[in-house]
Amino acid sequence: MRIDVLSIFPNMFAPMRESIMGKVIERGLVEFNVIDFRDYTDNKHNNVDDVVYGGGQGMLLMPQPIFDAMAHVEAEAGNRGRVILLDPAGKTFNQAMAEELAHEEHLTFIAGHYEGYDERIRELVTDEISIGDFVLTGGELGAMTVIDATVRLLDEALGDEMSAVDDSFSTGLLEYPQYTRPADFRGLKVPDVLLSGHHANIDRWRKKESLRRTYHRRPDLLENYAFTPEEHKLLNEIKAEEKE
Amino acid sequence: MRIDVLSIFPNMFAPMRESIMGKVIERGLVEFNVIDFRDYTDNKHNNVDDVVYGGGQGMLLMPQPIFDAMAHVEAEAGNRGRVILLDPAGKTFNQAMAEELAHEEHLTFIAGHYEGYDERIRELVTDEISIGDFVLTGGELGAMTVIDATVRLLDEALGDEMSAVDDSFSTGLLEYPQYTRPADFRGLKVPDVLLSGHHANIDRWRKKESLRRTYHRRPDLLENYAFTPEEHKLLNEIKAEEKE
Repeated sequence: MRIDVLSIFPNMFAPMRESIMGKVIERGLVEFNVIDFRDYTDNKHNNVDDVVYGGGQGMLLMPQPIFDAMAHVEAEAGNRGRVILLDPAGKTFNQAMAEELAHEEHLTFIAGHYEGYDERIRELVTDEISIGDFVLTGGELGAMTVIDATVRLLDEALGDEMSAVDDSFSTGLLEYPQYTRPADFRGLKVPDVLLSGHHANIDRWRKKESLRRTYHRRPDLLENYAFTPEEHKLLNEIKAEEKE
Repeated sequence: MRIDVLSIFPNMFAPMRESIMGKVIERGLVEFNVIDFRDYTDNKHNNVDDVVYGGGQGMLLMPQPIFDAMAHVEAEAGNRGRVILLDPAGKTFNQAMAEELAHEEHLTFIAGHYEGYDERIRELVTDEISIGDFVLTGGELGAMTVIDATVRLLDEALGDEMSAVDDSFSTGLLEYPQYTRPADFRGLKVPDVLLSGHHANIDRWRKKESLRRTYHRRPDLLENYAFTPEEHKLLNEIKAEEKE
């Protein structure tokens, strides 16, 4: 996979050299480039932004530097790939989108900073993505978030680091409580059932606590959840317990 | 404001030295510390994780290093502050939460990596936050996202960099299309109304396009939106236009 990012803050992408992303770059599974689109400005002050037509506070990213940085990516890679604009008005990113992006050969991200985008920049874009309903100083953290969620799905990247935390969202329920050693940490104890070695009881406890946590914290996830008869029974047990 | 982060990947926090966050640190408005909790392990291999009780794939972060790193923060700062665990099972982060956190004196983030957390770590925690319904390799990008959204709200940090993009989520609608110079960029033109200098028409166009974009992309935001009579009329116009 080839990943290009257009950003005026290339140093912000240091986290992409660490952890799984760092490993996949090292192994040559992902080619990762950050292009500072300030280098592509054709005005003598290297400005990337200008005032808003029709009036208004703030500045907007101009089309020219981003169009020309994109032309550079296209000339180098032979195509632009999926072009993802990080923008609060974009589609909210989720795990299904990460799974879709993980199948692409080439992803190009446009990450603005402070400013909004001149509308014409969207002409270059195949996908507008927001990572959530909050405002950030720029698109850099959003781009890194989308890249991290996507790259960790590449088969080769996962290996044996596939972790217990994966369960959330892949089963459709939140993860059950988990414990590691010691069984008694400064008076805080691991539930007896997990120390029992009785696998059927452990499975049942986990399924129930997973349902309980989802019921309390994210009831919206249960709306479209396909309950098994056992899960349906467990959820009724939880509701009865909590009415007492 | 004091911000502490507990993480075994301190280098991932380089973006926090850039942009607005970098400026507020430089000006002394925010004291920012990353504590590598691997330094607090009391086992000879400096392990931070261990196998899961009751069986299961992957490893879990052990309570000891995180409890002891937290004791260090508490000893240094006099308190733990709001303790935020980044976790897929947490409450979904949004702008209202950023506004709430921006009023705190001290925030401490716990960012796990690969693994899940031993449940007892949640004893230290006041808030569990997820930045969205997707799985990341660790909590670092989530912590940086929450910090960025929060710190940019600190009055002093904003100054004149407050930008056009702010409008999304603060008005409850998505931003209208915006344009900067040139009026004709390689054949792509700015809508005439924005060049007209007629402020009432510009305001009306912007309000309508803001409603149109929200209606198309995020109809959920309109469910609880308090429409003015004018906005109500504009939305009906949009619906009529699009039926044609």
